[in-house]
Order: sequence, then C-alpha cells, then structure tokens
Amino acid sequence: MGTGNEHKLIVNCLPLTDTERAQFTHAAKNTPQEFIGDPTQRGNMTWTAEIPENLKTKATAIIGNIPPEQCAQCPKLEWLQTWSAGVDKYQQPGILQPGSMLTNATGAYGQSVSEHMFAMMWAIMKNLHIYAANNPQATWHDAGRTISPNGKTALSIGTGDIGSHFAQLCKNTGMTTIGIRRNTTINTPGIDHMVGIETLDNVLQYADIIAMSLPSTPATHHLLNTQRLTKLKPNAIILNAGRGDAIDNQALAKALASGAIRGAGLDVTEPEPLPAESPLWREPRCLITPHVAGGNHLEATERRIIAIALGNVRCYANGQSLDNRMPLRG
Amino acid sequence: MGTGNEHKLIVNCLPLTDTERAQFTHAAKNTPQEFIGDPTQRGNMTWTAEIPENLKTKATAIIGNIPPEQCAQCPKLEWLQTWSAGVDKYQQPGILQPGSMLTNATGAYGQSVSEHMFAMMWAIMKNLHIYAANNPQATWHDAGRTISPNGKTALSIGTGDIGSHFAQLCKNTGMTTIGIRRNTTINTPGIDHMVGIETLDNVLQYADIIAMSLPSTPATHHLLNTQRLTKLKPNAIILNAGRGDAIDNQALAKALASGAIRGAGLDVTEPEPLPAESPLWREPRCLITPHVAGGNHLEATERRIIAIALGNVRCYANGQSLDNRMPLRG
Repeated sequence: MGTGNEHKLIVNCLPLTDTERAQFTHAAKNTPQEFIGDPTQRGNMTWTAEIPENLKTKATAIIGNIPPEQCAQCPKLEWLQTWSAGVDKYQQPGILQPGSMLTNATGAYGQSVSEHMFAMMWAIMKNLHIYAANNPQATWHDAGRTISPNGKTALSIGTGDIGSHFAQLCKNTGMTTIGIRRNTTINTPGIDHMVGIETLDNVLQYADIIAMSLPSTPATHHLLNTQRLTKLKPNAIILNAGRGDAIDNQALAKALASGAIRGAGLDVTEPEPLPAESPLWREPRCLITPHVAGGNHLEATERRIIAIALGNVRCYANGQSLDNRMPLRG
Repeated sequence: MGTGNEHKLIVNCLPLTDTERAQFTHAAKNTPQEFIGDPTQRGNMTWTAEIPENLKTKATAIIGNIPPEQCAQCPKLEWLQTWSAGVDKYQQPGILQPGSMLTNATGAYGQSVSEHMFAMMWAIMKNLHIYAANNPQATWHDAGRTISPNGKTALSIGTGDIGSHFAQLCKNTGMTTIGIRRNTTINTPGIDHMVGIETLDNVLQYADIIAMSLPSTPATHHLLNTQRLTKLKPNAIILNAGRGDAIDNQALAKALASGAIRGAGLDVTEPEPLPAESPLWREPRCLITPHVAGGNHLEATERRIIAIALGNVRCYANGQSLDNRMPLRG
C-alpha cells in the first residue's frame, strides 16, 4: 500500500558512515532518499552541501546547509534541515517558499560551546592566557594571584542549551549558579536561582563569572555597557559565546585596561573577524578565540546533528510534525 | 602551675590578621610567642622571614621559611615549621641540629596545584594556548578540532595530595581516573583504579591525560622518556606540576613537534627557569607556566598553611607530637 511518499525525495548531504546511512534509510521507510554527502568531510570541520542539477527539480526535502540561492532552484522543496543552529539566511523572504518547513540543529552545540566557555573561565582564573601569550618570547615571569572556582558564583545570561550546560559544569566544580531569563518558570538544569531579566542590574554585583550566550536581537544589543560594567566585582570574569554585539567592546576594553575587572574571554566579537586595530587584541586580560566554540570542533556535536536529522527524517516519513521548527520571515 | 613552657619561645613569622594572632596566642597557652610577621605580605605572594638578633638566642620554635643559615644562629631551636611543602634546604646536614623537629606545609598546596593542572588540561583540549599566543598578532584563525573531557581517562602519576585532588576534579567532569603508586593499598580519593608503578608501561596506552606530580628522586628521573612517549595516544595531553626532571624534555619536544601527541602543559621544567633556547618555548602545542601552580597564588593556600601551623602550635604547647614531620639528612 502506497502512502504517497514515493513522490517525495530527501536529498541528504550529511557526511555519513555506512552504518548511519543504513539508519537513515530505515528511518525514511518508503520515502526515497539520495545520499550525496562526502564521508571524508567527517571530522574535518568543513561540511559542504551542493544539490546536483538532476536532483533540484525532484527534492522535496534537503538535509544540509546548501547555498541559500539554491533553495529557489528546488521548486518542490517543502523541508530544509540545517546542520547549523543559526538559520538567519534561510529565514529571509524569497529564499524558502511560504509554508515550507525550516528546522535547525539547536541542541547539538550546547556541550561544545559551554565547554569552551568553561575552559576560558579556568584559563583566566589561572592566568594561562597571559602565560601562553608570553611563551613565544621565552618569558619566565609570575603573572600573580589566581582564583579557584570553588565557592564562586556564575551568572548565566542566556539560559538555553548553552547557558544551562555551562551552569551544570560550574555546579560540578562547587560553584553557585544564577540564571537570567525572560520566562523564569521554565525549569533549567544547572541553575540554582533563576531570576527575571528585569533584575539584571541588581544581580551583577554578586557574579564572579558573567557567562553570556544571547542571540543578537535589538533587546540584547550592548546589554553589557559601561554602566553595567561598573557594577561588577573587581575580580569578575566576562565570557561571551553568544553574539558579539551583546557587549559594548569600547566599554569592555576600558574596563580591562583600567583593571576594573579581572578578564574577559570572547569567542564572539563585533564585528567578526575582530579588526586588527581593536585594543582588545593587545589587552593581556582578554582572551579572544575566533568564533570556534561551536561549529563541528567537537566530535560529539557531529553525532548530535546527525541524531537530530535522523529523528526528523523519521517524522517526515511518518507525516509527523518536525522538531526544531524555525519560523520564516516576511 | 608552671609547665616548663615559659622557657620556650615561638617566633611566628606568618603574615597574620589580628583574629589569627589571637587564635595562635590561644593555641600556644602559656608558651611565649613573638609575632614578627608583616600582615601586609598577606596576599602579595612574597612572604619573608628574618629572625631579629635579640630573638635568635631565645627562639625554641620558628614558624616561617627563614634563610637556612640563620638556623645555626639559634642555639635553642628545636622546631622549625615551614610554609613551603619542599624542605630540602633545611634537611641538609649542618642546618638544623640533630634531633630538631622539621615540619612542612604539605596539604596546603593540593588544591592550587591540581586546579592549575586541570586548567591547563582544559586549555589544551580547547586550543586556548594556541589562540592566546596568537592574540597579540590579531590573528583570527581556526586552530582545529577540540576534545571534551567527558568520557576520557586521566592517569595520575603521583597520587599524593595533588594527584588525588586532580583526579577528583576529573571525576566531577565525567572522566575515569587511574592512579599509579608504589603502595596500591593506600586509599586515595578520586582514583577509580589504582595500579602499581610496575604496570606503568601497560597503562600508558589507555590514558588521554597523563598528569604528573612526582617528587624529584633517582627513581623518577626522566620517567617519561622516548620509549614511553611512543606508547601514548595521538591525542594524549601531558601535564607536569611535580618536578621538571620527571620528563625527558628533548624527547617531549620531538613528540610535540612531530604531532605524536596533542600537547603538554608544563608548570615545571628542567632546569628552571627554562632556558630561552629550549624548543619547548616555541612549540605551539606546549603551554609553559613558570612554576606558579603552587606557592601562595591562591588565597585558600594561605589559609591552609596557617591552619597547619596553628595545629602544630597547639601540639607544641601541649607536648604532643607534631603533624607533617619531615626527616633530617645525614
């Protein structure tokens, strides 16, 4: 008995192992699926997706971050599953047809990004960024006092997958965690005390660590500004792995240069790449990484992306609603 | 009623707060005590101890790392309590009189040193040492894949205060821990599997992290040599915060340069300071810190040193045996 799925076609661009291909084939049931991913891209940090000409008119579903302009070349496309968390470019008007389904890989990156933030926290507590910067000059010089996370308080601004995961790492190290979110009734693992965004100005004074994992929106633009930086403890450490414009870079550079705070670990900046003339590059208290906390730097991230896509292929084949739906704009 | 303690004199060189002085006075009971420490040295990382001339003939006990040659100038000296863990220079013949008691501050440094090793581990897993070294050149460049500690195995070579504390930090992050020691019957918190030193060559292949906190002895000299380095996993990370000569530096530099292992975090080197011509300084996979993991870099270390001394003052006043006794040589 046919289910109508024979007229569908999933074009799967994931770099899959043979075992994983078999899992996707099984999940898709009678829905046809073309595997065009390159298995050698597994683990090499550059996944690419290009739809072959002969499949463009047939594809009803695509798994992979294809060039946005290719969406319009696929007239039957009704579902796009990305391997990224960010999908801004596919949400723009004119890219996907109205009514199409867009799903992302939210949930795959929390471990990787939060661990990167946690590593930056430890490095700055122990002055490792200062020692590492001095190593090429063969400098044997004591950089001063250190901090233990034990007994300290971390404030997670942004308490989604990343902020929650970060808070759990902190709790495992003897820290207390405060979370900031708009809807404080959502239960968030790892957060000891959840408070509303309106109390931000009051809780900054208690934070030893300020861990930011916010999306870029008008409400989060320069959230950490001069006025809020002055409320921080002298030993406070700022971490940002959300979007760079959540911090006023000029204000941060001044706070660091004056010793008003201990340090900052930035995986995101405004703009990116951070211009060579930014004073943050030459500020010893500042550790900058080039937007690498997420991506597919961690093997576990790749496995989670594939698991999310696999689950949605199963739903698509069964006519069930998809996970990780993202709205289209316009 | 006199106890004979009136003829004793404790010369206390610790930089104490008023509250702590009161605690020491109470602990010493009727044993006289002179406080000559400088409270402003608290937290500044340089504690000094010099016995004033007028006290040299009276001191029966000294708390502080006085210049070793001053010991001979104190004819009544029967007990020296150091604030260091290492006491080599006081153990040499001719420094303390035979029969004198020497006690150290072992136990005060485990947290500080193990946390430093743990921070180095995270930094190398996430390439932070590479990014930090590139920051002054404003380099926005992806350094490649990262590692999560979750599910990995740490091998603690040396399972005293430092190795045990390090293993507990690892376990809190989802790692499995193996410990190496001569006497495997001693229970060690944090160690999942304790094995004898004779199995070292067999367990190296299982270790993702090799954490060394060994003293310098003929048996530990160049313990990690070319032959053992070849047994390590390609993603292995070596950490050393014990003594520098436990690793063959030349062999390590070759292993790092060839990419045979992921990286090394060294707080101790052979010799110290590490000479500018050492290839390790310019090896991007190597993070070097200038023997700063311990010392009094961490506030908690200072509090523990003071607590150890306070306990021994109480014992001294009561005629009880002292903790942390170390043997004299010769």
